Amino acid sequence: MAKRLIPCFNRVLVEKIIPPSKTNTGILLPEASSKLNSGKVIAVGPGSRDAEGKLVPLCVKEGDTVLLAEYGGTEVKLDEKKYHLYDDHDILGSLHD
Amino acid sequence: MAKRLIPCFNRVLVEKIIPPSKTNTGILLPEASSKLNSGKVIAVGPGSRDAEGKLVPLCVKEGDTVLLAEYGGTEVKLDEKKYHLYDDHDILGSLHD
Amino acid sequence: MAKRLIPCFNRVLVEKIIPPSKTNTGILLPEASSKLNSGKVIAVGPGSRDAEGKLVPLCVKEGDTVLLAEYGGTEVKLDEKKYHLYDDHDILGSLHD
Amino acid sequence: MAKRLIPCFNRVLVEKIIPPSKTNTGILLPEASSKLNSGKVIAVGPGSRDAEGKLVPLCVKEGDTVLLAEYGGTEVKLDEKKYHLYDDHDILGSLHD
Amino acid sequence: MAKRLIPCFNRVLVEKIIPPSKTNTGILLPEASSKLNSGKVIAVGPGSRDAEGKLVPLCVKEGDTVLLAEYGGTEVKLDEKKYHLYDDHDILGSLHD
Amino acid sequence: MAKRLIPCFNRVLVEKIIPPSKTNTGILLPEASSKLNSGKVIAVGPGSRDAEGKLVPLCVKEGDTVLLAEYGGTEVKLDEKKYHLYDDHDILGSLHD
Amino acid sequence: MAKRLIPCFNRVLVEKIIPPSKTNTGILLPEASSKLNSGKVIAVGPGSRDAEGKLVPLCVKEGDTVLLAEYGGTEVKLDEKKYHLYDDHDILGSLHD
Repeated sequence: MAKRLIPCFNRVLVEKIIPPSKTNTGILLPEASSKLNSGKVIAVGPGSRDAEGKLVPLCVKEGDTVLLAEYGGTEVKLDEKKYHLYDDHDILGSLHD
Repeated sequence: MAKRLIPCFNRVLVEKIIPPSKTNTGILLPEASSKLNSGKVIAVGPGSRDAEGKLVPLCVKEGDTVLLAEYGGTEVKLDEKKYHLYDDHDILGSLHD
Repeated sequence: MAKRLIPCFNRVLVEKIIPPSKTNTGILLPEASSKLNSGKVIAVGPGSRDAEGKLVPLCVKEGDTVLLAEYGGTEVKLDEKKYHLYDDHDILGSLHD
Repeated sequence: MAKRLIPCFNRVLVEKIIPPSKTNTGILLPEASSKLNSGKVIAVGPGSRDAEGKLVPLCVKEGDTVLLAEYGGTEVKLDEKKYHLYDDHDILGSLHD
Repeated sequence: MAKRLIPCFNRVLVEKIIPPSKTNTGILLPEASSKLNSGKVIAVGPGSRDAEGKLVPLCVKEGDTVLLAEYGGTEVKLDEKKYHLYDDHDILGSLHD
Repeated sequence: MAKRLIPCFNRVLVEKIIPPSKTNTGILLPEASSKLNSGKVIAVGPGSRDAEGKLVPLCVKEGDTVLLAEYGGTEVKLDEKKYHLYDDHDILGSLHD
Repeated sequence: MAKRLIPCFNRVLVEKIIPPSKTNTGILLPEASSKLNSGKVIAVGPGSRDAEGKLVPLCVKEGDTVLLAEYGGTEVKLDEKKYHLYDDHDILGSLHD
């Protein structure tokens, strides 16, 4: 079974971050507040090409924590693990502490 | 929990300005007059790219007060604070005293 | 309250000219004849960009009297005054005596 | 009241030619034959811009007699005279004796 | 009445060839076989422009016999004669003995 | 009656290959297996033009055996023979022994 | 009967990998887990062209194992073997151990 996927073009492979429904001390988090559609970038494609055929770098890189649009993303199962493949246009931005 | 969002491409992170419903002296403002869909720019992306792959600067910058189109904008919650993420094409212009 | 709006891209801020319904000598003007959808340009954006990222100058400038398309235009209230914000493609032309 | 309109972009101001319903000697012309949707060019815009921002000259000029597409054209009244404003793509060609 | 039409852009003025329904010796031709939607090129426009504003030559020239797409073409009457005005994209090719 | 068609732009004139329904030794071929939508290239156009007006060579040439998309293709009768005219984008590839 | 297909433009000929429904030791695999829409690249076209007419290399090459989008792909039978022809935009990425 294949372990690694190298995305094509401007696609980004993301492992979604499932926000904890409880705080460390066990208090139930209100459902809405914990819902940030985010994930970690596992792999990125080489980028799409501009009108002159040059590669256009992506807006995020491997290891980034990213905010995802509500829609978009294709579910991909590799070695029983669930990932999502996004066009980089559906990545809203990168999250930083 | 992440505190900062760096938008991708030509996106603009805006904190909406909620117009006061009363004047300083407490007089109720007529509902219509106080409704200017505006906000403060918190962060901007690097810009989108032109046909030759060069970055196209955005029309507004961090700290600007901006007039927003009636539609567009994706709600984003960071640290329990509500922001909106706009494409720069949905920013109508910058407001100045 | 903000007094000035600098439009983004190729947008044009226009103050509509309300045609008089009577002549100077008080004669009622037939409704149809007075209806020229025109206005005065209050402010213009920097312009949109061509495929090479260069700014494309607008077709009209501040102070011009312009003929407006029947549709298009977003109503904007600044300091209780009503303006309309147009894409420059919805400006049909400039009017001259 | 404004007397002259300078069109924007690739727009063409046309005064439609109303074909005579009778010959000079008073003979009624069959309705169909007299119906050539044509007009005289009163004013032209500077042209639209190509991908490199250069102005693209229009296909017709002031004074030309032109054949008009069946559709398109915005009616404009200037000093009680009726004109039509066309995109130059809706001008089929120029008519010559 | 105008006698000549110079088409705009990439338009082609065509006089349709009405295939004979009988052979020279008077034998009735089966209806289907005689139906080749073709015509003779009367006049061509200067061509449309590429992204750099350069004129793109048309694929056919005055005097060519051409095969026409089933659809497209605007009927134009000049001096009581019926012509059709095509975009050059609706000209399928040129016919040669 | 015209014998030759020179296609315009990126069009390809194809004579469809009707697969034999029997083998050489007369055995009936199962209907599905013989159904390869293919044909022989009779003539090609000069190609379409890129954004800089340069001709873009076609992907196939006269004499090639080609695999055709299920849809597309305009039927053309020349000298009682049936051909099909395709855009080169509807040619899936060339077939080789 | 033709044995080889050279795809046109940016098309990719793929032989789908039918995932085993049992492990080597005969244990039935849960239906969902074995369903990775993947295949082996048999042949690739020369690529499509950018705005300047230059060929744009494909994102995958002959021999790669690739992950396929759920949709897209045209079934093609060559010598009784079933293949699928994809636009390279419908190839999600390449799979590596």
